[in-house]
Amino acid sequence: MKSVPDFSDIEKAHLIIHEYIHRTPALTSASINSITGADVYFKCENFQKVGAFKFRGACNAVFSLPQEEMELGVATHSSGNHAAALALAAKIRGIDAHIVMPRTSSEIKKKAVAGYGAKITFCEPTLEARENTLEKVTGKTGAIEVHPYDNFFVIAGQGTAAKELIEDAGTFDILLAPVGGGGLLSGTAISTKHLLPDCKVIATEPAGADDAFRSFRAKKLIPSVNPKTIADGLLTSLSDRTFSVILDKVDDIVTVSEEKIVEAMRLIWERMKIIVEPSSAVPLAAILGNKVEVKNKKVGIILSGGNVDLERLPF
Amino acid sequence: MKSVPDFSDIEKAHLIIHEYIHRTPALTSASINSITGADVYFKCENFQKVGAFKFRGACNAVFSLPQEEMELGVATHSSGNHAAALALAAKIRGIDAHIVMPRTSSEIKKKAVAGYGAKITFCEPTLEARENTLEKVTGKTGAIEVHPYDNFFVIAGQGTAAKELIEDAGTFDILLAPVGGGGLLSGTAISTKHLLPDCKVIATEPAGADDAFRSFRAKKLIPSVNPKTIADGLLTSLSDRTFSVILDKVDDIVTVSEEKIVEAMRLIWERMKIIVEPSSAVPLAAILGNKVEVKNKKVGIILSGGNVDLERLPF
Repeated sequence: MKSVPDFSDIEKAHLIIHEYIHRTPALTSASINSITGADVYFKCENFQKVGAFKFRGACNAVFSLPQEEMELGVATHSSGNHAAALALAAKIRGIDAHIVMPRTSSEIKKKAVAGYGAKITFCEPTLEARENTLEKVTGKTGAIEVHPYDNFFVIAGQGTAAKELIEDAGTFDILLAPVGGGGLLSGTAISTKHLLPDCKVIATEPAGADDAFRSFRAKKLIPSVNPKTIADGLLTSLSDRTFSVILDKVDDIVTVSEEKIVEAMRLIWERMKIIVEPSSAVPLAAILGNKVEVKNKKVGIILSGGNVDLERLPF
Repeated sequence: MKSVPDFSDIEKAHLIIHEYIHRTPALTSASINSITGADVYFKCENFQKVGAFKFRGACNAVFSLPQEEMELGVATHSSGNHAAALALAAKIRGIDAHIVMPRTSSEIKKKAVAGYGAKITFCEPTLEARENTLEKVTGKTGAIEVHPYDNFFVIAGQGTAAKELIEDAGTFDILLAPVGGGGLLSGTAISTKHLLPDCKVIATEPAGADDAFRSFRAKKLIPSVNPKTIADGLLTSLSDRTFSVILDKVDDIVTVSEEKIVEAMRLIWERMKIIVEPSSAVPLAAILGNKVEVKNKKVGIILSGGNVDLERLPF
């Protein structure tokens, strides 16, 4: 089996998941257009089920495999949106979801995942503990691991967001997405370069977690070391699989400061009256920080999610 | 001229203002439906221009009068959404807006009104000072006063929100709106009772500013004395004009606690990922507080606006 999906796999994913996902709207804002000098369309994955694009990929992974392979359930380690997404997708299919979560995860996230009926195993908050615990869980249960981004079906599922955006809002000059592990970015690039070969795909990354930026420049994978950013969805490092797509299909990667992320997040909240998490604000931060030239261009931005702790806002 | 609009006046208003306003979406939330046991449609006036339904009424007032009556501009006293709404409507028509604002208004609101090019006169933060200052301003300039709710055209304009909601989402069993001065409620009741005579129109009011509730029960106008609520859009008292519509067309008025308002506001933010101001959360608060029986019913809620100071959130 090929390791990376092409556009036909994204089309297949869309057929499989469309009855479970929301077709989220593409919103515009006159005042953000006036501030940026561009015509900006925001693909609102903050309105997606579980509050993030992650539900697309998790849903495709859960519904793409035949029943006999899925009977023992699915498993992952995640402290964030992927855990909730996989738990909900498994619940819909009627199989078990085994989620390994660091014991330090926020109560809100623990409750959300438990609320979808997942079986949670807590572990120490290190990558090693997470991986070891997951191995034990899959060994004991026979559940299939669904990695948050290093997974063929997950990447294909995430690619449906850009596909919908282009179907609903037409051509673009530039499409911007945040990059963490690269699942959303890979899927976005595959859809966009197939549907709009002349559209630039530019990834945006916090300067405090710039492994994708450095890897892209060096043309070799350089994992994150102690990444630090308010955009907590973007702390992960690329995998070989997502990096290969990014090298092939992404035009550029730019980095943004923490200050610009908060400024962009606040602008989206105040002007658009929608709630987005810091990771979602990274593309607009790149525009506000003049890292991407958008004047008089039609620009698409994937707003990745809207899960924020209202008691710990940066403003 | 009649003092209160009927549905044909709301239809006229809609024809006049439709090119200037947003036709805001009616959103639903699976998780709020599951919590309430109802099928709830939220009319998102938080996405309206200037962030509130007030733009509908202000726009209708500014565009309904013939040019020769408008040449000297429009005027109002307001510290809130009506000031910004009137300023933007006047700017679009190319006439002056004279706004009397208490000098204690927040910097954000002063900036917003000034940003629309209005001429601001500051006064002491008392109703007497506001009215006296406005009289001086209209005396000097000849501008026409546009009251925030005690105005035929304003009420007709506000009624277009419920008209759109019913056109877009079909029939309802119950329509809920917040009540402050009664402009939105009057317009909502006129539209709803014309289009859906069997639909109940229920007003929701903070217990700390319950003049409409008490007036409705007593069948005579009892103005607010020292109202106090986080729902700062609902501090005003009814006028004779709005009260007459409310007595005629509203089925009931219920009050809600401050605690339930914050709980409902938080629920909308967390589950729907949209930003609403406390006044917008009052109808859902009534449902959460079991003040309105909605089980298995189709319910419409007008979300009045989304202008909140992000630095002073109640959670």
